[in-house]
Amino acid sequence: MLKVLVSPWGNFKVWKKTVYFLNGRKFSARSTLPVIKEEIKPDVSFVILPDTLTGSFEDYEAVVKHVKGEGYSFLKELGVKDVEIIVAPGSGSFQNGRFIGDLMDFYNIVLYELLAKLPKSDMEVHLDVTHGLNYMTLMTYRVVKEILETMGICKKVSLIVYNSEPPIQDQITNVHIVERANLFFRPSDDYISSKIYLLDLYTIEKTKENYRKLNEEELYLSKSIVKRCRKMWNAWMASLYFGFPLVFTTFFPEPDDVKRVIDDVLRVYKSHIKIEGNTIKRCLKFGNEFKILLKLHTLINMVPEIRKNALSIQEIREIGGKIFDQKVRAFLERELNSIEKEAIDRSNRNITFDWKPLRSLLKTPASEEVIKRNFMAHAGLECNITEVKLEKVNSREEVKYKTFLRYSESKRNVIPELVERIVFG
Amino acid sequence: MLKVLVSPWGNFKVWKKTVYFLNGRKFSARSTLPVIKEEIKPDVSFVILPDTLTGSFEDYEAVVKHVKGEGYSFLKELGVKDVEIIVAPGSGSFQNGRFIGDLMDFYNIVLYELLAKLPKSDMEVHLDVTHGLNYMTLMTYRVVKEILETMGICKKVSLIVYNSEPPIQDQITNVHIVERANLFFRPSDDYISSKIYLLDLYTIEKTKENYRKLNEEELYLSKSIVKRCRKMWNAWMASLYFGFPLVFTTFFPEPDDVKRVIDDVLRVYKSHIKIEGNTIKRCLKFGNEFKILLKLHTLINMVPEIRKNALSIQEIREIGGKIFDQKVRAFLERELNSIEKEAIDRSNRNITFDWKPLRSLLKTPASEEVIKRNFMAHAGLECNITEVKLEKVNSREEVKYKTFLRYSESKRNVIPELVERIVFG
Repeated sequence: MLKVLVSPWGNFKVWKKTVYFLNGRKFSARSTLPVIKEEIKPDVSFVILPDTLTGSFEDYEAVVKHVKGEGYSFLKELGVKDVEIIVAPGSGSFQNGRFIGDLMDFYNIVLYELLAKLPKSDMEVHLDVTHGLNYMTLMTYRVVKEILETMGICKKVSLIVYNSEPPIQDQITNVHIVERANLFFRPSDDYISSKIYLLDLYTIEKTKENYRKLNEEELYLSKSIVKRCRKMWNAWMASLYFGFPLVFTTFFPEPDDVKRVIDDVLRVYKSHIKIEGNTIKRCLKFGNEFKILLKLHTLINMVPEIRKNALSIQEIREIGGKIFDQKVRAFLERELNSIEKEAIDRSNRNITFDWKPLRSLLKTPASEEVIKRNFMAHAGLECNITEVKLEKVNSREEVKYKTFLRYSESKRNVIPELVERIVFG
Repeated sequence: MLKVLVSPWGNFKVWKKTVYFLNGRKFSARSTLPVIKEEIKPDVSFVILPDTLTGSFEDYEAVVKHVKGEGYSFLKELGVKDVEIIVAPGSGSFQNGRFIGDLMDFYNIVLYELLAKLPKSDMEVHLDVTHGLNYMTLMTYRVVKEILETMGICKKVSLIVYNSEPPIQDQITNVHIVERANLFFRPSDDYISSKIYLLDLYTIEKTKENYRKLNEEELYLSKSIVKRCRKMWNAWMASLYFGFPLVFTTFFPEPDDVKRVIDDVLRVYKSHIKIEGNTIKRCLKFGNEFKILLKLHTLINMVPEIRKNALSIQEIREIGGKIFDQKVRAFLERELNSIEKEAIDRSNRNITFDWKPLRSLLKTPASEEVIKRNFMAHAGLECNITEVKLEKVNSREEVKYKTFLRYSESKRNVIPELVERIVFG
């Protein structure tokens, strides 16, 4: 299993040498990093530093470069190799300068950076929260947990959290494991709202004109993509949790669309970081939708990419086995069984048929009203909007029959809307 | 909506006066508490302090009393009323003394205390993490989130998290809202294992004899209760998540059993807190099962207490409406509909019948093998172990029929075992 170490750090310059003790292993150092790295031997390691440690204020690139430079020197002094430093925006006034911006910028940037850098495989994340300042500790914890609960859609992931006792110079300080958990897919509680809240004004005055400029000019590209795709993306994300296999393949998002929005939002956000003297002003802050898009992009990269309007029952089973949890799989299987029973009955009588409403196969009375609850209770295979086809497949040895399902072409475009009504109650 | 404020604090004695700024409201104080309390006007407020702040080492009661005393004096100085102080065990060596014990003791005690003190109603929890030391901040955050995700079973609960920028003496320090979320029921990932891990040796040497003494003597009462009830409790907890209404009422736990175990574990844990000079040694630590029992006890107190072996379809619907999420409710409704359809068919023909296997009503072929997947896919109403009864109910105006369901008496005792196999895969 791949091991990843993540350590949010505060101002490492003030740390004193201590004897850190973990699982019978002792290490005298100014940080827990050597002893933890020695103990777990991670494949990939990240240290997260706030930009508030900077000594350079030329431009934001110089800010990041300076913090990284000092960080890598300290790592060298610790004798630790193969660690990547991520610099994220902090807030507050310090001796070196003022850092004005939303506290959540740290969360959003760390989420973005870690999602971009973490391998997409089964993994064990070791999070050492010993050295973080409190908002950074808590936010990094949230970010890591949310990432793993996103990747959990089809990867085995677990989290181990370390924390030392308050260190005392030159004495033995115990490093404790304070959490150890296997994490499972957990859908975002949020969906992309009709307000498409990507960025917001922070230090810029909240006038109509400034909002117009931000939303209609600077974010024009992003907003128009999200406006076009929003309902399909929401439906697709919901399909993973509620278990709608046909929604999953019919509305599989274009990863490039999502990526383009993410890049565009970051570009606009960064273009509004102003530096005057020793003051850094982040004039915009991230809206709620940014993190949803980051998670959506991750989900797209985790699951098998299947874009199909029609699926065989066998294909649905395979998809279910890969992306749905056992509860949803059991319900889906029940649904497929009842459809298959009828299909086998026809094929036993050598009957095949082209696309027709599923309700006519299941002998359900027709109904124009697609009931929300039925859509959910039947794994999205509601019999008035789903169509079924039975084909004869001639293989060398035997005659086989294959059952296919799809959404009726005339009703396909109402489905994102319908799923939205389910999701938002 | 009831508002609760929770603030984990470190050593408040060193805090300096700052002008805290929140939502246009300013307050010059040594803590964020006045401005947040003024802003949200909570109905109930808690400050959580570590016992490491103590100046008294007479016995553990004196330790807690001393910390509370100093805490309440500081609250008075802040001019803040109606705050309850919770003291929880911290770890580390400080100028005043040494505190030896597992870091997770803090988590377990705060979980216990907050669960005991929080009202069991819809609520909004405001968590101010500005002043916590990092392991306390993170653990309090976890505790609060886990509590709300337990209470979410049938209450509307939400979490708002506050954090200030690093404060500077006499300057304006912004307090940010860093998280705002509605939380929903989330089952514990853990169930009570056959090892019944209630307490573990921490500073006591891990010899066979010491384990025997702990488990077979000191925890004898607790262990025997849990041994007897474990599988039923696990099945009951699983019923809430997987949506098994008959498991819910057939195996509804005795709250007194759970409470007795919790009290007993705490008693044994506390009896092993040793004080020598200025050193406090917590010789035992909590096992994983303790927190599960705390959450189980909370769940029992949140849901409607219904102990019944047989339920009418109407009763099942009502229970489902109260405790299951919409996904599970949709599946359950589908199940009930298919049973009801057959029952209505009989009652239309004036047929009633006493308890008989559900499979004979649904005309499913008999099978001795109860398939795991079927149990899950049919909301626990698997047709080989479930029995059905159709009764005529004479009301004044009309003749009505009522359908009842129960687990077959001869198979009832295998159900916890079966659910366990489902839960543990």
